[in-house]
Amino acid sequence: MRFLLTNDDGIYAQGLAAIKQALERVGDVVVIAPVTEQSAVGHTITISDPLKVIPIYRSGAFYGYGITGSPADCVKLGISCIMDDPPDVVVSGINKGENVGINVLYSGTVSAATEALILGHTGVALSVDNYLHPDYTAASIFGARLASRLAALKDPLPFALNVNCPSIPIQEIKGVKITRQGDSRIVDKFVKRENPRGTTYYWQAGWTKVIDNAEDTDAVCLLNKMISITPIHYKLGYHEHNSDLEQLDMEGILRGD
Amino acid sequence: MRFLLTNDDGIYAQGLAAIKQALERVGDVVVIAPVTEQSAVGHTITISDPLKVIPIYRSGAFYGYGITGSPADCVKLGISCIMDDPPDVVVSGINKGENVGINVLYSGTVSAATEALILGHTGVALSVDNYLHPDYTAASIFGARLASRLAALKDPLPFALNVNCPSIPIQEIKGVKITRQGDSRIVDKFVKRENPRGTTYYWQAGWTKVIDNAEDTDAVCLLNKMISITPIHYKLGYHEHNSDLEQLDMEGILRGD
Repeated sequence: MRFLLTNDDGIYAQGLAAIKQALERVGDVVVIAPVTEQSAVGHTITISDPLKVIPIYRSGAFYGYGITGSPADCVKLGISCIMDDPPDVVVSGINKGENVGINVLYSGTVSAATEALILGHTGVALSVDNYLHPDYTAASIFGARLASRLAALKDPLPFALNVNCPSIPIQEIKGVKITRQGDSRIVDKFVKRENPRGTTYYWQAGWTKVIDNAEDTDAVCLLNKMISITPIHYKLGYHEHNSDLEQLDMEGILRGD
Repeated sequence: MRFLLTNDDGIYAQGLAAIKQALERVGDVVVIAPVTEQSAVGHTITISDPLKVIPIYRSGAFYGYGITGSPADCVKLGISCIMDDPPDVVVSGINKGENVGINVLYSGTVSAATEALILGHTGVALSVDNYLHPDYTAASIFGARLASRLAALKDPLPFALNVNCPSIPIQEIKGVKITRQGDSRIVDKFVKRENPRGTTYYWQAGWTKVIDNAEDTDAVCLLNKMISITPIHYKLGYHEHNSDLEQLDMEGILRGD
């Protein structure tokens, strides 16, 4: 089994090291990850700057390829130019902090999994729900088992998987649930400061609020100490309201009526 | 009427100037746009760096606020901290180059419109289908008429609008069509080069290919010289296949069966 492993916390992140070790027990792992942290870069791709590929060594051994770009760049460049054979599964993570609700759209971790889907491969994003003191043990055990099960499937999945795992010992996890992307999200809060030279700047200080309490959502699943698995896609098109839109008389707007 | 105007080509872009002028004929325009080009940044938000707000003057007059961040940052910070009253409509563009098909996910222009939707406002992304020699005339006339019509609605739209306009004189435009986000996309191609010091680097040299020829899609609409309007949302959740996923026996994977 061949895994392309990437993330958005950067190639030196502990979460990546944890899942790398677990995946190496079941297959070959090619690490292709951003050289610097790329949190919240969403589905950025690099089109106006060149991408460098930097071989990274740790403790004297080859560790992986550091890319001067985003998680989605890593998947694109990795599959096009770095890997000799295509991966069976693209794994992204383990992210420090959950990726649930509307925030999924901001997530670099998730973008690598959806980019895999765009390119016709199975993609899995892994995150744990603790930003400050993450415990990656359960997520790496479950993530590696899941990835090896997916790698054994005959065809790639027709969707990507957004997996969020409680940051607790595996024996305390209450189960696994297939969930729906909820409406919980970062509620903006900006902190205004002044630098020593008198220039004003702002920090985004908002945190995710669970504003969607439905039992079948990703955020609530985590609160219930269960692993959340949400199938995701790459389309933003939303066509339920197309008929409402017809009433706006677009042809009239074009003519300037 | 109050418009928040942003883009991803940066505050000095010609496309922004074109729609600014057209919008100023119908209402007040507050420009809050990235100080540097942010093409293809997707739904990036800045959480690890501070955001500066730089007043920009052109020809001796105040022009707008330059933000050291992404289009989505501009919308968040603009509504939270810069505008005294919330905008009636958030307009993003006019982007140099179309934003259609799967590429919508990569688009900074579109992310500003979806961010507006997340925050409860009407959001419109405007793009023209010519990257090298864009003609913004038709898009700015139609875009301003559309934005003023939307600003007059009693409630914000429950979706954002992704508007793509042919880069041709307005009298040659064949009409307006409500479309669906198609499957056309950038087909990756990387060009490998070596810098003068012997380091290898890659350029993403892929272009969008119309691989989805359905008549009701955004890309085909543009080819037919019509303005394409696609309703979009911010959710990636994809639940058609939840039952297939149940067959994978996730509880068994957790237990290590």
